[in-house]
Amino acid sequence: MKTRRDFLSQLGLGAASAISIPLLSSFESDSSIKDIEKPGIITDERPELVVPKGNALRITGTFLDEISHDIPHQNWGEKEWDRDFAHMKAIGIDTVIMIRSGYRKFITYNSEYLINKRGCYKPGVDLLDMYLRLADKHKMKFYFGLYDSGVYWDTGDMTTEIEANKFVIEEVWKKYGHYKSFSGWYLSGEISRKTKGAIESFRTLGQLCKDVSGGLPTFMSPWIDGKKAVMAASGKLSKEDAVSVQEHEKEWGEIFDGIKGAVDACAFQDGHIDYDELDAFFSVNKKLGDKYGLECWTNAETFDRDMPIKFFPIKFEKLRLKLEAAQRAGYQKGITFEFSHFMSPQSAYLQAGHLYDRYKEYFGIK
Amino acid sequence: MKTRRDFLSQLGLGAASAISIPLLSSFESDSSIKDIEKPGIITDERPELVVPKGNALRITGTFLDEISHDIPHQNWGEKEWDRDFAHMKAIGIDTVIMIRSGYRKFITYNSEYLINKRGCYKPGVDLLDMYLRLADKHKMKFYFGLYDSGVYWDTGDMTTEIEANKFVIEEVWKKYGHYKSFSGWYLSGEISRKTKGAIESFRTLGQLCKDVSGGLPTFMSPWIDGKKAVMAASGKLSKEDAVSVQEHEKEWGEIFDGIKGAVDACAFQDGHIDYDELDAFFSVNKKLGDKYGLECWTNAETFDRDMPIKFFPIKFEKLRLKLEAAQRAGYQKGITFEFSHFMSPQSAYLQAGHLYDRYKEYFGIK
Amino acid sequence: MKTRRDFLSQLGLGAASAISIPLLSSFESDSSIKDIEKPGIITDERPELVVPKGNALRITGTFLDEISHDIPHQNWGEKEWDRDFAHMKAIGIDTVIMIRSGYRKFITYNSEYLINKRGCYKPGVDLLDMYLRLADKHKMKFYFGLYDSGVYWDTGDMTTEIEANKFVIEEVWKKYGHYKSFSGWYLSGEISRKTKGAIESFRTLGQLCKDVSGGLPTFMSPWIDGKKAVMAASGKLSKEDAVSVQEHEKEWGEIFDGIKGAVDACAFQDGHIDYDELDAFFSVNKKLGDKYGLECWTNAETFDRDMPIKFFPIKFEKLRLKLEAAQRAGYQKGITFEFSHFMSPQSAYLQAGHLYDRYKEYFGIK
Repeated sequence: MKTRRDFLSQLGLGAASAISIPLLSSFESDSSIKDIEKPGIITDERPELVVPKGNALRITGTFLDEISHDIPHQNWGEKEWDRDFAHMKAIGIDTVIMIRSGYRKFITYNSEYLINKRGCYKPGVDLLDMYLRLADKHKMKFYFGLYDSGVYWDTGDMTTEIEANKFVIEEVWKKYGHYKSFSGWYLSGEISRKTKGAIESFRTLGQLCKDVSGGLPTFMSPWIDGKKAVMAASGKLSKEDAVSVQEHEKEWGEIFDGIKGAVDACAFQDGHIDYDELDAFFSVNKKLGDKYGLECWTNAETFDRDMPIKFFPIKFEKLRLKLEAAQRAGYQKGITFEFSHFMSPQSAYLQAGHLYDRYKEYFGIK
Repeated sequence: MKTRRDFLSQLGLGAASAISIPLLSSFESDSSIKDIEKPGIITDERPELVVPKGNALRITGTFLDEISHDIPHQNWGEKEWDRDFAHMKAIGIDTVIMIRSGYRKFITYNSEYLINKRGCYKPGVDLLDMYLRLADKHKMKFYFGLYDSGVYWDTGDMTTEIEANKFVIEEVWKKYGHYKSFSGWYLSGEISRKTKGAIESFRTLGQLCKDVSGGLPTFMSPWIDGKKAVMAASGKLSKEDAVSVQEHEKEWGEIFDGIKGAVDACAFQDGHIDYDELDAFFSVNKKLGDKYGLECWTNAETFDRDMPIKFFPIKFEKLRLKLEAAQRAGYQKGITFEFSHFMSPQSAYLQAGHLYDRYKEYFGIK
Repeated sequence: MKTRRDFLSQLGLGAASAISIPLLSSFESDSSIKDIEKPGIITDERPELVVPKGNALRITGTFLDEISHDIPHQNWGEKEWDRDFAHMKAIGIDTVIMIRSGYRKFITYNSEYLINKRGCYKPGVDLLDMYLRLADKHKMKFYFGLYDSGVYWDTGDMTTEIEANKFVIEEVWKKYGHYKSFSGWYLSGEISRKTKGAIESFRTLGQLCKDVSGGLPTFMSPWIDGKKAVMAASGKLSKEDAVSVQEHEKEWGEIFDGIKGAVDACAFQDGHIDYDELDAFFSVNKKLGDKYGLECWTNAETFDRDMPIKFFPIKFEKLRLKLEAAQRAGYQKGITFEFSHFMSPQSAYLQAGHLYDRYKEYFGIK
């Protein structure tokens, strides 16, 4: 079996130099992880895997990409969404997270506030209500993603996000808080360590969510400022000045310190760093989470950042490396961006259905 | 019900400032539009729409994207095209427009002129004949798109387009004019207001088409020089110096004045302006059409210009906003670029089939 | 029937001026090519083709794109690969070429050397073993593509490629050489005429392959430094300073002279030059091959380089032009990059299945 230590020994020089002995010592209690490993099904059509099966963190949550920034829409109606929730359930997903309740003028529910006060377009259907009904039906937990006005992306200023979401949080809780599946809040701003002004905003927004909802949990999903942190639209695939693990640790330490209590979990996006940097960054993330009392989730991206087409489903091998690393680091939960385009048997991207099959094989899911 | 006035009240400052009172007054006779609204089907699977159903201009025409500039080919044979015409018919499309009869050296029919005089490649099949036979069979109107030599795109000079099309128009009418479905001509040059030298060309080409064919109608489909008017290949999604509504009105007034009589309809592409600018531009277009005697059609693009993948099917919500605006403006016909990739149940882009379903639901088409 | 001479007469000025009389004389013995032409099936659904059917070189080999540089993965398991080999077989493909055994840290087989000495990731399944078993089962020839460390792409230096592949070649032959289908080696470095330092490397690598395997054949598949030779990620579709046919002839003459004996065939990629340059370049390639004793294959790319989406299946018309030119030039074999994404009935790109159908129609394959 390939152990964590074997893996670490393969790290390139740059990353390796960032892993000091003290850091590694935080792994020593990970031996229990192997209990999760499950025997797989070996069929005639499929040769024995070279690596052990199921030795990785499972994905138990997914974003619902409404309203999308950059992933073309599938134009599903409720019938398709209902079926998709069933596909999710079948591989152990128990949590759905609506990634944002609106982006600029497009919104997911018939919000009086956003339509009348911020000029948003009246939506064709109430997606929020639909998702909550389906989550109830399929006995899944639903997290509500805050509104994204676009102002932060344009200016770097979070004021509008806070201002608008004060109303949104209240309006949504009043109208939809009765749903049994309404289980938490997703602070949808995607920040990196460079967005330190965001500490105050995230604390404020997280606290607002908790105050209105009797303390329902909140989480965030920032990106690591790594090699592949480039804009989707640009042709460049890597970045000269990738953040070092030490800088990452220092700056995220400050952020976690500032938001603790108001934000319950942090699911770093796992796609901006190289595969041999995973252990180095993940171990730091877990250490920081433990220190400041945030749960450490992984946002295991199921799309491939390394291809000219932005974006199609990821190759299973790459997903496996990332989920194995999350397991080794002792992460508490795995979620993905996102199931319905990149992993669903009914995705318009047919590669997604095959990813679903490979995932099931690997984890021995019948 | 969301009325036009509600919609206009949501316009951003930039666009709003361009809408003067006189402009708005041209809307006052639009109240009859609401007659078109039809009751929809409400099924168990689909929650009641938030907005009223069917309150928009229907798509009754589509381009046939042969020879394509920038949309990958589906490699359909006649069987697939036959089936696609049936899918079109089922949602009320009665007009097909072959977008161009050739582009540079690739051509759609076995043209002696283009092969011998312009070095074009001999085509594998006679697509033009096939489309005309299928249009006859499905009782649809066929518009023939002129040849595009590519010289205009390279140099901005329309001389070659006029020169080549003189021969093409005559050759095509002689060989294919007998088809019952041959109903008109599409002046395939895609100009914007910047292409004012094109007035003479479009008048000349339109008149040539009419002269040879006993006055069959002609139309054009230019683009509005708006925010999103950027080359498909570029990574940029918006343009600094978007045209203002006033400039648009002034310059297109001159163009319409110059081509009137030779061009019967103008179907502006609807994808280069933002959704909250639609009413402002559409009302100007209709006013200009009325003034100069051109029918005002909308070219409702069914692909999404806002995504990194250039191009996949549009989200139904966006299409709805555009068709609602066309309805409010009193446009005479809706066509799309284009059904077969972006809206067809048999498209290689599976999102297209779902767009088809959403479209049918919205208009209550069984 | 459209003959080669007709075709050449359509060449643009630039390319035409590069074709001298002596060059053309090498075609005179090509008349036998027409024997390959086969009567097609004319069905009710399909009108008679304008051009004669089957008058082109058939594709009898395909790359297997593992590990991919730039084409998103389909996530197939053995069942899907088995079925794909059958689809290949059905249209006459008898040769499969694994494009590379590894790229940077991702590898196709459980290589002790690459994992322990070069820090590669342990693969989930042994793809090499799977491909060889399937090639045995389907009675196809398998070519093994060498390891690509990525160092050459980053630095232009081939030293690492030679160093690593010394071990890879030996390891692979020892472990997999017993497979009946193991029929040759693919020198996976993609060079152009600018990579002249590669002569020594290709001779060395080719000889190593032959020495270890009792002289099994080797081939390469370089690109022609033509108009469309631009990086996939860039938005530009053509290149100012395309190589002229004369330069191409001069420089590849030197390269062929340097590698003869160690490399048995050269399959130039056919997608970087324009369709009316095909005859000019192909005739030179064949002349050089004959002169230096290399078989002349064509790598008929089945993806479309002219579209903003990089990359989707090519339009059949374009593939036909390229295969007709390869036939006219007397090429010895046609292979493609690659069947499984761009031509397979089970490809995630549904256009590929239609390309398969058009290809079968054209060659009269039931």
